[in-house]
Amino acid sequence: MQRTLIIGASGQIGKQVTQLMLDGGHFATALVRDKSKLSDVQGNTLSIVEADLTEDFGHAFEGCTEVIFVAGSGGDTGADKTLLIDLWAACRSADYAKKHAIQHFIMVSSIGADAPSNGPNEMQPYLVAKHMADEHLIRSGLHYTILRPGSLTNDDAKGSFSDERPKDKSEAVITRADVAQALVYLAGDNRQDSMIKELFNGGKTLTEVLR
Amino acid sequence: MQRTLIIGASGQIGKQVTQLMLDGGHFATALVRDKSKLSDVQGNTLSIVEADLTEDFGHAFEGCTEVIFVAGSGGDTGADKTLLIDLWAACRSADYAKKHAIQHFIMVSSIGADAPSNGPNEMQPYLVAKHMADEHLIRSGLHYTILRPGSLTNDDAKGSFSDERPKDKSEAVITRADVAQALVYLAGDNRQDSMIKELFNGGKTLTEVLR
Repeated sequence: MQRTLIIGASGQIGKQVTQLMLDGGHFATALVRDKSKLSDVQGNTLSIVEADLTEDFGHAFEGCTEVIFVAGSGGDTGADKTLLIDLWAACRSADYAKKHAIQHFIMVSSIGADAPSNGPNEMQPYLVAKHMADEHLIRSGLHYTILRPGSLTNDDAKGSFSDERPKDKSEAVITRADVAQALVYLAGDNRQDSMIKELFNGGKTLTEVLR
Repeated sequence: MQRTLIIGASGQIGKQVTQLMLDGGHFATALVRDKSKLSDVQGNTLSIVEADLTEDFGHAFEGCTEVIFVAGSGGDTGADKTLLIDLWAACRSADYAKKHAIQHFIMVSSIGADAPSNGPNEMQPYLVAKHMADEHLIRSGLHYTILRPGSLTNDDAKGSFSDERPKDKSEAVITRADVAQALVYLAGDNRQDSMIKELFNGGKTLTEVLR
């Protein structure tokens, strides 16, 4: 049986991807610090594990076959939390995934994580954390997909995508709803090769962009 | 000709190791952001390169055969600087070192960097940064020595060392002056195997501890 562990399931993208997974009949384990924050997510195939990502959370991986890491310390917390969540919890998730023979690890990264020094000054510490977390996953030996969305917006899903970075930075955006759709697509995918993809709203279907 | 690049040469350990290198007749290149901070360091075999570790500093490696990374963002700066200096500048230093065929990379790490989750809560973000920087160096293919000193003090050099972690945490200390001595010892060493060593004040000589 396939079961997807969603790490950071009560976040802005996390909630949407969790609900979409449940709507599609997938078995999902939502890893959250506070399950009351998931009260508006509903589905018969949902399990919830409460754990703090700065503590041990290896037990959440039991019985899971796939991982979506969509946890983030958020814009309001300091860089100390960026180190503990975006970097360290991501690395430990990959380590736990190895131990539990997870078949596919889907990481929500960020545009610019490939080259932190080229990013805007105020983004560089965050991009360093994402870069190092991605590197750790790449070197883990796990089968992985690293998704690097453009600037995130809260608009409604557009259902149209691109993996080519727009020349105009202001167009390098994607809705959180569309990122959630892409994650569900990847979760159901059975490709065997690992990949790294930037993702924006654009003019193509998910199949065109992610196959 | 041997020439040692000291990254972070105007820091508390950096200054002492730079002066000791010069006193021993070694050729040293001091990489600092502001050379006026090195005005009290003297020697005929000293070169100074001014560069910001958050910018490009690859030119500092030219003509060098060895690197001592002793830069740190310091206790007064935020975790954003920990990400940019202790982690990212360290990773980039290893990358530059590879490009310049550096023969030996000596990293000043920290006790606890092996297992950040086991450290005191307030130290964990810093230990994550040091852990990931060490990992990057280990995987770089460079010949390396990673030194993990205990809690640093400003006492005078004791000249006696241990690589066994004391049971009593309050004894897991070492003076910065002794760390500087250890770095000079390592810089002159011609061992070919890489190693990771914790270092404290204790009852042994440097040769007994580091050979």
